[in-house]
Amino acid sequence: MKLVIGNKNYSSWSMRPWVLLKHFGIAFEEVKLRFDFTPDSAFYRELARFSPVGKVPVLIEDDGFAVWDSLAITEYIADRHPDLPIWPREVQARARARSLCAEMHSGYAALRGHCPMNIDADLAAVGQRLLATEPKLQQDLNRLCAAWSEALQASGGPFLFGEFSAADAFFAPVVMRVTRYSLPLPAVCQSYAEAVSAAAGVRDWISDALAERDFLDFEEPYRAQP
Amino acid sequence: MKLVIGNKNYSSWSMRPWVLLKHFGIAFEEVKLRFDFTPDSAFYRELARFSPVGKVPVLIEDDGFAVWDSLAITEYIADRHPDLPIWPREVQARARARSLCAEMHSGYAALRGHCPMNIDADLAAVGQRLLATEPKLQQDLNRLCAAWSEALQASGGPFLFGEFSAADAFFAPVVMRVTRYSLPLPAVCQSYAEAVSAAAGVRDWISDALAERDFLDFEEPYRAQP
Ligand SMILES: N[C@@H](CCC(=O)N[C@@H](CS)C(=O)NCC(=O)O)C(=O)O
Ligand SMILES: N[C@@H](CCC(=O)N[C@@H](CS)C(=O)NCC(=O)O)C(=O)O
Repeated sequence: MKLVIGNKNYSSWSMRPWVLLKHFGIAFEEVKLRFDFTPDSAFYRELARFSPVGKVPVLIEDDGFAVWDSLAITEYIADRHPDLPIWPREVQARARARSLCAEMHSGYAALRGHCPMNIDADLAAVGQRLLATEPKLQQDLNRLCAAWSEALQASGGPFLFGEFSAADAFFAPVVMRVTRYSLPLPAVCQSYAEAVSAAAGVRDWISDALAERDFLDFEEPYRAQP
Repeated sequence: MKLVIGNKNYSSWSMRPWVLLKHFGIAFEEVKLRFDFTPDSAFYRELARFSPVGKVPVLIEDDGFAVWDSLAITEYIADRHPDLPIWPREVQARARARSLCAEMHSGYAALRGHCPMNIDADLAAVGQRLLATEPKLQQDLNRLCAAWSEALQASGGPFLFGEFSAADAFFAPVVMRVTRYSLPLPAVCQSYAEAVSAAAGVRDWISDALAERDFLDFEEPYRAQP
């Protein structure tokens, strides 16, 4: 099985299934395609060999079958490994985990748009400025903290639903955003962000991202010279 | 079990789980909240009784437990009814169905932004103009037709994965868009759009939407006087 991903420093959607597979010890071969979103780039040409969609991540089965989109890949992994607690075992906790992930998948537009993932960067000053000028960013942050707090309180932590699950893999790139932009979090969410950052698969992704040092102008709206 | 939805003429996200539940004969009580997206509206106040998210649809269990987001609701219904073929039975078909739904959930921004659902309206002239002026709309349409065609060819139709499944419920609002804006489709996709429009749950939603006649200015960018 292959997982096709983008630059580790920047590709928030790729991070999710990679972290999930690592966390649960599911073997896969990583295929990293360097980001280049100009038409007919090597990125798109390579990617077209795997998937009709032109986006990473894509999971490729040994028979060539492609599963795309981070959420569908997550469900596929859960489907293939019913023995592993990819989603919470209890049906309502599982439903709540999926509500949070699907909400993230189609929402949080301000957080996503204003604070693109950049694991290598310290963007605290940018974060402070954005919070002052972009009211929707503060709204997204409020909703995020409410969602995390409610889940953490119900489960007792340290992860959203107790043990590390797909929901935490899904929010790992969000943790990268809030920590790099130093967005202020209540204590319970701060501890959660630390727990996610220290989880094995996440730590591995972060150290790969920091070692990568492949900085791309179009992914750097806030840094002149990384 | 309750399903909280918005106006049937306009609420594309609400349409999905409603159609799915109807199609599979799963009983529920409908709670319709009239759209009003001004702060502190009756819509938001009512909705806050059910869910922390402030969006419809929301499914409410008999014990008050809330599941929000159309995709998470779909998974919850499938989880609760393993006997019903909500998702395709075969694992790769199921993965493909989820790829298409998740891709729709977080993508097709141009189709969604330029062609809001309005079941009552004939917007053929608007559709023609939009296709001429918005290249991203044509791109979304191309991708949509490619996705549908590939699935229909693999399954033999009449629905994306043979029998009506969650994927068709998910694309039902898209069918409403492409037909109301008369966006041109290849024959195989045209037949598919007709099959979806004629499916029992979809037909019921459409006739409720047409009977509703509750027209809202902020949902009518293209019609002066419905
Ligand atoms: N909803 C998709 C989004 C994937 C996505 O947008 N990936 C970005 C990189 S992080 C990409 O490949 N963009 C290329 C493009 O949009 O052309 C998922 O969850 O996998
Ligand atoms: N991803 C959500 C989106 C739900 C959504 O955006 N619903 C709209 C109506 S169709 C809404 O309630 N909007 C109110 C708002 O955004 O304030 C889902 O799939 O359920």
